[in-house]
Amino acid sequence: MRNLETCFSPALYEEERHLGKLVVIIDILRASSSICAAFENGVSSIIPVATVDEAKAYKSKGYRVAAERDGYVLDFADFGNSPFNFTREKVEGQTIVYSTTNGTGLIQKAKGAGIIAIGAFLNITALTKWILEHDMDVVLFCAGWKNRFSLEDTLGAGAIAELLIESGSISTICDSTHAAIDLWTMAKKDPWEYIQKAAQRSRLREKGLDDCIEFCLKPDYTKKIPYFKNGILVE
Amino acid sequence: MRNLETCFSPALYEEERHLGKLVVIIDILRASSSICAAFENGVSSIIPVATVDEAKAYKSKGYRVAAERDGYVLDFADFGNSPFNFTREKVEGQTIVYSTTNGTGLIQKAKGAGIIAIGAFLNITALTKWILEHDMDVVLFCAGWKNRFSLEDTLGAGAIAELLIESGSISTICDSTHAAIDLWTMAKKDPWEYIQKAAQRSRLREKGLDDCIEFCLKPDYTKKIPYFKNGILVE
Repeated sequence: MRNLETCFSPALYEEERHLGKLVVIIDILRASSSICAAFENGVSSIIPVATVDEAKAYKSKGYRVAAERDGYVLDFADFGNSPFNFTREKVEGQTIVYSTTNGTGLIQKAKGAGIIAIGAFLNITALTKWILEHDMDVVLFCAGWKNRFSLEDTLGAGAIAELLIESGSISTICDSTHAAIDLWTMAKKDPWEYIQKAAQRSRLREKGLDDCIEFCLKPDYTKKIPYFKNGILVE
Repeated sequence: MRNLETCFSPALYEEERHLGKLVVIIDILRASSSICAAFENGVSSIIPVATVDEAKAYKSKGYRVAAERDGYVLDFADFGNSPFNFTREKVEGQTIVYSTTNGTGLIQKAKGAGIIAIGAFLNITALTKWILEHDMDVVLFCAGWKNRFSLEDTLGAGAIAELLIESGSISTICDSTHAAIDLWTMAKKDPWEYIQKAAQRSRLREKGLDDCIEFCLKPDYTKKIPYFKNGILVE
Protein backbone atom coordinates (compact mmCIF):
# COMPACT_ATOMS: atom_id res chain seq x y z
CA MET A 1 0.00 0.00 0.00
CA ARG A 2 1.30 3.44 -0.86
CA ASN A 3 1.98 5.72 2.07
CA LEU A 4 0.82 9.31 2.57
CA GLU A 5 2.34 11.89 4.89
CA THR A 6 1.76 15.57 5.50
CA CYS A 7 4.39 18.10 6.51
CA PHE A 8 3.05 21.31 8.10
CA SER A 9 6.15 23.47 7.71
CA PRO A 10 9.52 23.52 5.92
CA ALA A 11 11.08 23.20 9.41
CA LEU A 12 9.40 19.79 9.75
CA TYR A 13 10.40 18.39 6.34
CA GLU A 14 12.44 15.19 6.72
CA GLU A 15 14.76 15.28 3.69
CA GLU A 16 16.37 11.86 4.17
CA ARG A 17 13.09 10.08 4.72
CA HIS A 18 11.35 11.68 1.74
CA LEU A 19 14.00 10.84 -0.88
CA GLY A 20 12.39 9.72 -4.13
CA LYS A 21 8.81 10.41 -3.03
CA LEU A 22 6.13 12.40 -4.84
CA VAL A 23 6.07 15.74 -3.04
CA VAL A 24 3.20 18.20 -3.51
CA ILE A 25 3.93 21.79 -2.50
CA ILE A 26 0.83 23.52 -1.15
CA ASP A 27 0.84 27.30 -0.73
CA ILE A 28 -2.83 28.20 -1.11
CA LEU A 29 -2.44 31.95 -0.42
CA ARG A 30 -1.07 32.55 -2.96
CA ALA A 31 1.87 30.90 -4.77
CA SER A 32 0.30 27.50 -5.60
CA SER A 33 -2.90 29.19 -6.74
CA SER A 34 -1.06 31.75 -8.88
CA ILE A 35 1.03 29.05 -10.55
CA CYS A 36 -2.11 27.02 -11.36
CA ALA A 37 -3.79 30.14 -12.77
CA ALA A 38 -0.73 30.89 -14.90
CA PHE A 39 -0.69 27.40 -16.46
CA GLU A 40 -4.43 27.50 -17.07
CA ASN A 41 -3.82 30.74 -18.94
CA GLY A 42 -1.15 29.23 -21.15
CA VAL A 43 2.19 30.10 -19.55
CA SER A 44 4.85 27.86 -21.10
CA SER A 45 7.07 27.69 -18.00
CA ILE A 46 7.82 29.46 -14.72
CA ILE A 47 11.29 30.02 -13.30
CA PRO A 48 11.23 30.45 -9.51
CA VAL A 49 13.99 32.68 -8.12
CA ALA A 50 14.89 33.43 -4.50
CA THR A 51 16.38 36.92 -4.61
CA VAL A 52 15.47 40.32 -6.02
CA ASP A 53 18.86 40.43 -7.77
CA GLU A 54 18.15 37.18 -9.62
CA ALA A 55 14.73 38.51 -10.64
CA LYS A 56 16.35 41.75 -11.88
CA ALA A 57 18.97 39.83 -13.86
CA TYR A 58 16.22 37.90 -15.67
CA LYS A 59 14.30 41.14 -16.28
CA SER A 60 17.33 42.66 -17.97
CA LYS A 61 17.46 39.63 -20.29
CA GLY A 62 13.88 40.35 -21.39
CA TYR A 63 11.85 37.99 -19.21
CA ARG A 64 8.52 38.99 -17.68
CA VAL A 65 8.90 39.04 -13.91
CA ALA A 66 6.37 38.62 -11.07
CA ALA A 67 7.95 40.02 -7.91
CA GLU A 68 6.66 41.28 -4.58
CA ARG A 69 8.25 41.98 -1.23
CA ASP A 70 5.92 42.25 1.77
CA GLY A 71 2.97 42.41 -0.57
CA TYR A 72 4.21 45.30 -2.70
CA VAL A 73 5.10 44.94 -6.39
CA LEU A 74 8.78 45.72 -6.91
CA ASP A 75 9.38 48.68 -9.21
CA PHE A 76 11.24 46.76 -11.92
CA ALA A 77 8.68 43.91 -11.99
CA ASP A 78 5.90 43.48 -14.54
CA PHE A 79 3.33 42.45 -11.94
CA GLY A 80 2.81 41.06 -8.44
CA ASN A 81 2.10 37.55 -7.17
CA SER A 82 -1.71 37.56 -7.18
CA PRO A 83 -3.32 34.82 -9.30
CA PHE A 84 -5.35 37.59 -10.97
CA ASN A 85 -2.16 38.95 -12.53
CA PHE A 86 -1.44 35.81 -14.52
CA THR A 87 -3.98 36.55 -17.25
CA ARG A 88 -3.90 34.97 -20.69
CA GLU A 89 -2.93 38.36 -22.19
CA LYS A 90 0.12 38.57 -19.98
CA VAL A 91 1.39 35.00 -19.81
CA GLU A 92 0.28 32.91 -22.80
CA GLY A 93 3.26 31.29 -24.49
CA GLN A 94 5.69 33.08 -22.16
CA THR A 95 8.31 32.02 -19.64
CA ILE A 96 7.63 33.96 -16.46
CA VAL A 97 10.12 34.55 -13.65
CA TYR A 98 8.47 34.28 -10.21
CA SER A 99 10.26 35.72 -7.23
CA THR A 100 9.54 33.78 -4.04
CA THR A 101 11.88 33.53 -1.07
CA ASN A 102 9.60 31.12 0.75
CA GLY A 103 8.93 28.97 -2.32
CA THR A 104 12.57 28.51 -3.28
CA GLY A 105 13.29 27.45 0.31
CA LEU A 106 10.69 24.71 -0.02
CA ILE A 107 12.06 23.57 -3.38
CA GLN A 108 15.55 23.37 -1.86
CA LYS A 109 14.25 21.23 1.03
CA ALA A 110 12.43 18.90 -1.37
CA LYS A 111 15.33 18.56 -3.83
CA GLY A 112 15.70 14.82 -3.15
CA ALA A 113 12.08 14.11 -4.07
CA GLY A 114 11.26 11.91 -7.07
CA ILE A 115 8.74 14.47 -8.36
CA ILE A 116 7.80 17.92 -7.01
CA ALA A 117 4.35 19.09 -8.10
CA ILE A 118 2.20 22.11 -7.22
CA GLY A 119 -1.08 21.50 -5.41
CA ALA A 120 -3.99 23.86 -4.84
CA PHE A 121 -7.76 23.81 -4.60
CA LEU A 122 -7.68 25.17 -8.16
CA ASN A 123 -6.33 21.86 -9.55
CA ILE A 124 -7.40 19.42 -6.83
CA THR A 125 -9.37 16.79 -8.79
CA ALA A 126 -6.90 16.61 -11.67
CA LEU A 127 -3.99 16.57 -9.21
CA THR A 128 -5.32 13.69 -7.14
CA LYS A 129 -6.01 11.63 -10.29
CA TRP A 130 -2.47 12.35 -11.47
CA ILE A 131 -0.99 11.40 -8.08
CA LEU A 132 -2.88 8.11 -8.18
CA GLU A 133 -1.34 7.32 -11.58
CA HIS A 134 2.17 7.48 -10.08
CA ASP A 135 3.10 4.48 -7.95
CA MET A 136 5.01 6.45 -5.34
CA ASP A 137 4.70 7.41 -1.68
CA VAL A 138 3.26 10.89 -1.29
CA VAL A 139 4.19 13.87 0.89
CA LEU A 140 1.85 16.86 1.11
CA PHE A 141 4.25 19.70 1.86
CA CYS A 142 2.52 22.77 3.32
CA ALA A 143 4.41 26.02 2.75
CA GLY A 144 3.15 27.75 5.90
CA TRP A 145 4.48 31.22 6.69
CA LYS A 146 7.95 31.85 8.12
CA ASN A 147 8.07 28.16 9.10
CA ARG A 148 4.76 28.41 10.96
CA PHE A 149 1.77 26.11 10.58
CA SER A 150 -0.94 27.69 8.40
CA LEU A 151 -4.64 26.86 8.37
CA GLU A 152 -5.25 27.41 4.66
CA ASP A 153 -2.39 25.13 3.55
CA THR A 154 -3.53 22.51 6.04
CA LEU A 155 -7.06 22.62 4.60
CA GLY A 156 -5.59 22.16 1.13
CA ALA A 157 -3.58 19.16 2.33
CA GLY A 158 -6.64 17.74 4.09
CA ALA A 159 -8.80 18.07 0.98
CA ILE A 160 -6.18 16.31 -1.18
CA ALA A 161 -5.55 13.65 1.48
CA GLU A 162 -9.25 12.88 1.76
CA LEU A 163 -9.49 12.19 -1.98
CA LEU A 164 -6.31 10.10 -2.02
CA ILE A 165 -7.43 7.92 0.89
CA GLU A 166 -10.93 7.51 -0.53
CA SER A 167 -9.26 5.96 -3.59
CA GLY A 168 -8.33 2.94 -1.44
CA SER A 169 -4.82 2.67 -2.88
CA ILE A 170 -3.11 5.05 -0.45
CA SER A 171 -3.14 4.92 3.35
CA THR A 172 -1.64 6.93 6.19
CA ILE A 173 -0.31 6.47 9.72
CA CYS A 174 0.68 10.13 9.93
CA ASP A 175 -0.87 12.26 12.68
CA SER A 176 -0.49 15.43 10.59
CA THR A 177 -2.51 13.87 7.78
CA HIS A 178 -5.25 12.77 10.18
CA ALA A 179 -5.38 16.29 11.63
CA ALA A 180 -5.48 17.90 8.17
CA ILE A 181 -8.37 15.65 7.08
CA ASP A 182 -10.29 16.37 10.29
CA LEU A 183 -9.80 20.14 9.93
CA TRP A 184 -10.91 19.93 6.30
CA THR A 185 -13.99 17.96 7.42
CA MET A 186 -14.87 20.86 9.74
CA ALA A 187 -14.15 23.51 7.11
CA LYS A 188 -15.41 22.07 3.84
CA LYS A 189 -19.02 23.17 4.16
CA ASP A 190 -17.76 26.76 3.93
CA PRO A 191 -13.98 27.11 3.58
CA TRP A 192 -14.27 30.88 3.06
CA GLU A 193 -16.03 31.27 6.40
CA TYR A 194 -13.58 28.90 8.12
CA ILE A 195 -10.53 30.73 6.81
CA GLN A 196 -11.61 34.08 8.32
CA LYS A 197 -9.61 33.29 11.46
CA ALA A 198 -6.41 32.43 9.58
CA ALA A 199 -3.45 34.75 10.17
CA GLN A 200 -2.63 34.93 6.44
CA ARG A 201 -6.21 36.06 5.77
CA SER A 202 -5.57 39.06 8.07
CA ARG A 203 -2.12 39.75 6.62
CA LEU A 204 -3.51 39.88 3.08
CA ARG A 205 -6.41 42.11 4.17
CA GLU A 206 -4.04 44.59 5.79
CA LYS A 207 -2.19 44.92 2.48
CA GLY A 208 -5.34 45.04 0.36
CA LEU A 209 -4.37 41.73 -1.25
CA ASP A 210 -7.30 39.66 -0.05
CA ASP A 211 -9.48 40.01 -3.16
CA CYS A 212 -8.17 36.66 -4.46
CA ILE A 213 -8.93 34.49 -1.42
CA GLU A 214 -12.35 33.22 -2.52
CA PHE A 215 -10.86 32.39 -5.93
CA CYS A 216 -7.98 30.46 -4.30
CA LEU A 217 -10.47 28.26 -2.41
CA LYS A 218 -12.35 27.33 -5.60
CA PRO A 219 -11.96 23.70 -6.66
CA ASP A 220 -11.14 22.62 -10.20
CA TYR A 221 -10.51 25.89 -11.98
CA THR A 222 -7.91 23.99 -14.01
CA LYS A 223 -6.77 20.50 -14.95
CA LYS A 224 -3.12 21.54 -15.17
CA ILE A 225 -0.51 19.88 -12.94
CA PRO A 226 2.53 22.14 -12.68
CA TYR A 227 5.67 20.19 -11.75
CA PHE A 228 9.40 20.75 -11.71
CA LYS A 229 11.69 19.71 -14.53
CA ASN A 230 15.33 20.75 -14.05
CA GLY A 231 14.32 23.44 -11.58
CA ILE A 232 11.71 25.00 -13.86
CA LEU A 233 7.93 24.65 -13.54
CA VAL A 234 6.27 23.08 -16.56
CA GLU A 235 3.01 21.21 -17.05
CA MET B 1 -4.91 41.47 26.10
CA ARG B 2 -2.62 38.55 26.81
CA ASN B 3 -1.57 36.52 23.81
CA LEU B 4 -1.71 32.75 23.37
CA GLU B 5 0.30 30.67 20.90
CA THR B 6 0.73 26.96 20.30
CA CYS B 7 3.88 25.27 19.04
CA PHE B 8 3.37 21.81 17.53
CA SER B 9 6.99 20.61 17.63
CA PRO B 10 10.36 21.53 19.14
CA ALA B 11 11.47 22.24 15.54
CA LEU B 12 8.88 25.04 15.38
CA TYR B 13 9.73 26.70 18.70
CA GLU B 14 10.72 30.36 18.21
CA GLU B 15 13.22 30.94 21.02
CA GLU B 16 13.74 34.67 20.46
CA ARG B 17 10.05 35.45 20.20
CA HIS B 18 9.10 33.47 23.29
CA LEU B 19 11.61 35.05 25.69
CA GLY B 20 10.03 35.71 29.09
CA LYS B 21 6.71 34.01 28.28
CA LEU B 22 4.86 31.37 30.29
CA VAL B 23 5.61 28.13 28.46
CA VAL B 24 3.60 24.97 29.13
CA ILE B 25 5.24 21.72 28.03
CA ILE B 26 2.65 19.16 26.90
CA ASP B 27 3.71 15.53 26.44
CA ILE B 28 0.47 13.64 27.11
CA LEU B 29 1.84 10.13 26.34
CA ARG B 30 3.55 9.99 28.76
CA ALA B 31 6.04 12.43 30.34
CA SER B 32 3.64 15.24 31.33
CA SER B 33 1.15 12.73 32.72
CA SER B 34 3.80 10.82 34.66
CA ILE B 35 5.17 14.02 36.19
CA CYS B 36 1.67 15.09 37.27
CA ALA B 37 1.06 11.64 38.80
CA ALA B 38 4.38 11.82 40.67
CA PHE B 39 3.57 15.19 42.26
CA GLU B 40 0.05 14.05 43.16
CA ASN B 41 1.71 11.12 44.94
CA GLY B 42 4.01 13.36 46.94
CA VAL B 43 7.32 13.44 45.07
CA SER B 44 9.35 16.37 46.41
CA SER B 45 11.18 17.12 43.15
CA ILE B 46 12.12 15.60 39.78
CA ILE B 47 15.49 16.02 38.08
CA PRO B 48 15.24 15.55 34.31
CA VAL B 49 18.40 14.18 32.66
CA ALA B 50 19.18 13.66 28.98
CA THR B 51 21.59 10.74 28.93
CA VAL B 52 21.80 7.23 30.36
CA ASP B 53 25.21 8.11 31.84
CA GLU B 54 23.76 11.03 33.78
CA ALA B 55 20.96 8.82 35.08
CA LYS B 56 23.52 6.18 36.14
CA ALA B 57 25.64 8.78 37.91
CA TYR B 58 22.61 9.89 39.95
CA LYS B 59 21.75 6.25 40.69
CA SER B 60 25.22 5.66 42.12
CA LYS B 61 24.65 8.64 44.44
CA GLY B 62 21.55 6.96 45.83
CA TYR B 63 18.75 8.63 43.85
CA ARG B 64 15.73 6.69 42.57
CA VAL B 65 15.80 6.70 38.78
CA ALA B 66 13.02 6.34 36.18
CA ALA B 67 14.65 5.43 32.88
CA GLU B 68 13.52 3.81 29.64
CA ARG B 69 14.96 3.54 26.19
CA ASP B 70 12.58 2.59 23.37
CA GLY B 71 9.99 1.62 25.94
CA TYR B 72 12.16 -0.77 27.93
CA VAL B 73 13.20 -0.12 31.54
CA LEU B 74 16.99 0.17 31.75
CA ASP B 75 18.60 -2.48 33.96
CA PHE B 76 20.05 -0.07 36.53
CA ALA B 77 16.81 1.95 36.84
CA ASP B 78 14.22 1.60 39.61
CA PHE B 79 11.27 1.82 37.25
CA GLY B 80 10.11 2.98 33.82
CA ASN B 81 8.33 6.12 32.64
CA SER B 82 4.69 5.05 32.97
CA PRO B 83 2.55 7.26 35.24
CA PHE B 84 1.52 4.03 37.04
CA ASN B 85 5.10 3.64 38.30
CA PHE B 86 5.06 6.87 40.29
CA THR B 87 3.05 5.50 43.20
CA ARG B 88 2.97 7.06 46.64
CA GLU B 89 4.97 4.12 48.04
CA LYS B 90 7.77 4.74 45.58
CA VAL B 91 7.97 8.52 45.34
CA GLU B 92 6.57 10.26 48.44
CA GLY B 93 9.10 12.68 49.88
CA GLN B 94 11.73 11.60 47.35
CA THR B 95 13.72 13.34 44.63
CA ILE B 96 13.36 11.25 41.48
CA VAL B 97 15.67 11.35 38.47
CA TYR B 98 13.72 11.12 35.20
CA SER B 99 15.62 10.18 32.05
CA THR B 100 14.12 11.81 28.96
CA THR B 101 16.05 12.67 25.81
CA ASN B 102 13.03 14.33 24.21
CA GLY B 103 12.03 16.25 27.34
CA THR B 104 15.46 17.73 28.00
CA GLY B 105 15.55 18.90 24.38
CA LEU B 106 12.31 20.82 24.96
CA ILE B 107 13.58 22.33 28.21
CA GLN B 108 16.74 23.47 26.40
CA LYS B 109 14.63 25.14 23.64
CA ALA B 110 12.44 26.89 26.22
CA LYS B 111 15.32 28.05 28.43
CA GLY B 112 14.54 31.74 27.76
CA ALA B 113 10.97 31.40 29.01
CA GLY B 114 9.81 33.31 32.09
CA ILE B 115 8.22 30.16 33.54
CA ILE B 116 8.21 26.58 32.25
CA ALA B 117 5.32 24.48 33.60
CA ILE B 118 4.07 20.98 32.87
CA GLY B 119 0.60 20.60 31.33
CA ALA B 120 -1.56 17.51 30.97
CA PHE B 121 -5.20 16.48 31.05
CA LEU B 122 -4.44 15.26 34.57
CA ASN B 123 -3.98 18.82 35.88
CA ILE B 124 -5.93 20.83 33.28
CA THR B 125 -8.37 22.82 35.43
CA ALA B 126 -5.85 23.73 38.11
CA LEU B 127 -3.26 24.55 35.42
CA THR B 128 -5.52 26.92 33.50
CA LYS B 129 -6.52 28.75 36.71
CA TRP B 130 -2.83 29.07 37.58
CA ILE B 131 -1.96 30.34 34.10
CA LEU B 132 -4.70 32.97 34.40
CA GLU B 133 -3.16 34.21 37.68
CA HIS B 134 0.11 35.03 35.88
CA ASP B 135 -0.04 38.15 33.72
CA MET B 136 2.14 36.77 30.93
CA ASP B 137 1.82 35.71 27.30
CA VAL B 138 1.40 31.96 27.00
CA VAL B 139 2.96 29.33 24.72
CA LEU B 140 1.54 25.81 24.65
CA PHE B 141 4.58 23.76 23.66
CA CYS B 142 3.68 20.30 22.33
CA ALA B 143 6.46 17.74 22.69
CA GLY B 144 5.49 15.68 19.63
CA TRP B 145 7.67 12.71 18.70
CA LYS B 146 11.05 13.08 16.97
CA ASN B 147 10.03 16.62 16.03
CA ARG B 148 6.79 15.43 14.46
CA PHE B 149 3.32 16.79 15.11
CA SER B 150 1.35 14.55 17.47
CA LEU B 151 -2.41 14.29 17.83
CA GLU B 152 -2.53 13.64 21.57
CA ASP B 153 -0.36 16.64 22.48
CA THR B 154 -2.39 18.81 20.11
CA LEU B 155 -5.61 17.72 21.83
CA GLY B 156 -4.06 18.61 25.18
CA ALA B 157 -3.08 22.05 23.83
CA GLY B 158 -6.56 22.53 22.35
CA ALA B 159 -8.28 21.64 25.63
CA ILE B 160 -6.09 24.08 27.59
CA ALA B 161 -6.46 26.79 24.91
CA GLU B 162 -10.24 26.48 24.95
CA LEU B 163 -10.36 27.10 28.71
CA LEU B 164 -7.91 30.02 28.51
CA ILE B 165 -9.84 31.75 25.73
CA GLU B 166 -13.18 31.17 27.44
CA SER B 167 -11.78 33.17 30.38
CA GLY B 168 -11.92 36.30 28.20
CA SER B 169 -8.52 37.57 29.34
CA ILE B 170 -6.40 35.74 26.75
CA SER B 171 -6.79 35.81 22.97
CA THR B 172 -5.03 34.29 19.98
CA ILE B 173 -4.18 35.06 16.37
CA CYS B 174 -2.21 31.84 16.02
CA ASP B 175 -3.31 29.30 13.39
CA SER B 176 -1.88 26.41 15.41
CA THR B 177 -4.02 27.37 18.40
CA HIS B 178 -7.15 27.61 16.23
CA ALA B 179 -6.39 24.18 14.76
CA ALA B 180 -5.75 22.66 18.21
CA ILE B 181 -9.06 24.00 19.55
CA ASP B 182 -10.95 22.72 16.49
CA LEU B 183 -9.39 19.25 16.77
CA TRP B 184 -10.20 19.19 20.48
CA THR B 185 -13.79 20.19 19.65
CA MET B 186 -14.00 17.13 17.38
CA ALA B 187 -12.35 14.83 19.91
CA LYS B 188 -13.70 15.89 23.28
CA LYS B 189 -16.85 13.81 23.26
CA ASP B 190 -14.62 10.72 23.34
CA PRO B 191 -10.88 11.47 23.37
CA TRP B 192 -10.04 7.77 23.87
CA GLU B 193 -11.89 6.85 20.69
CA TYR B 194 -10.36 9.80 18.78
CA ILE B 195 -6.82 8.93 19.82
CA GLN B 196 -7.03 5.40 18.37
CA LYS B 197 -5.61 6.69 15.07
CA ALA B 198 -2.62 8.43 16.70
CA ALA B 199 0.81 7.04 15.84
CA GLN B 200 1.94 7.15 19.49
CA ARG B 201 -1.09 5.05 20.45
CA SER B 202 0.17 2.33 18.05
CA ARG B 203 3.78 2.66 19.21
CA LEU B 204 2.78 2.18 22.86
CA ARG B 205 0.54 -0.80 21.99
CA GLU B 206 3.38 -2.52 20.14
CA LYS B 207 5.52 -2.27 23.28
CA GLY B 208 2.72 -3.25 25.67
CA LEU B 209 2.85 0.22 27.22
CA ASP B 210 -0.65 1.36 26.29
CA ASP B 211 -2.37 0.45 29.56
CA CYS B 212 -1.96 4.04 30.79
CA ILE B 213 -3.56 5.88 27.84
CA GLU B 214 -7.08 6.14 29.24
CA PHE B 215 -5.63 7.40 32.52
CA CYS B 216 -3.54 10.04 30.68
CA LEU B 217 -6.71 11.42 29.03
CA LYS B 218 -8.49 11.83 32.36
CA PRO B 219 -9.07 15.44 33.45
CA ASP B 220 -8.30 16.73 36.91
CA TYR B 221 -6.62 13.79 38.60
CA THR B 222 -4.51 16.38 40.43
CA LYS B 223 -4.34 20.08 41.32
CA LYS B 224 -0.54 20.11 41.23
CA ILE B 225 1.30 22.40 38.82
CA PRO B 226 4.84 21.10 38.28
CA TYR B 227 7.20 23.85 37.12
CA PHE B 228 10.92 24.38 36.75
CA LYS B 229 13.06 26.04 39.38
CA ASN B 230 16.79 26.08 38.60
CA GLY B 231 16.38 23.18 36.18
CA ILE B 232 14.51 20.97 38.66
CA LEU B 233 10.78 20.24 38.66
CA VAL B 234 8.99 21.31 41.81
CA GLU B 235 5.37 22.20 42.61
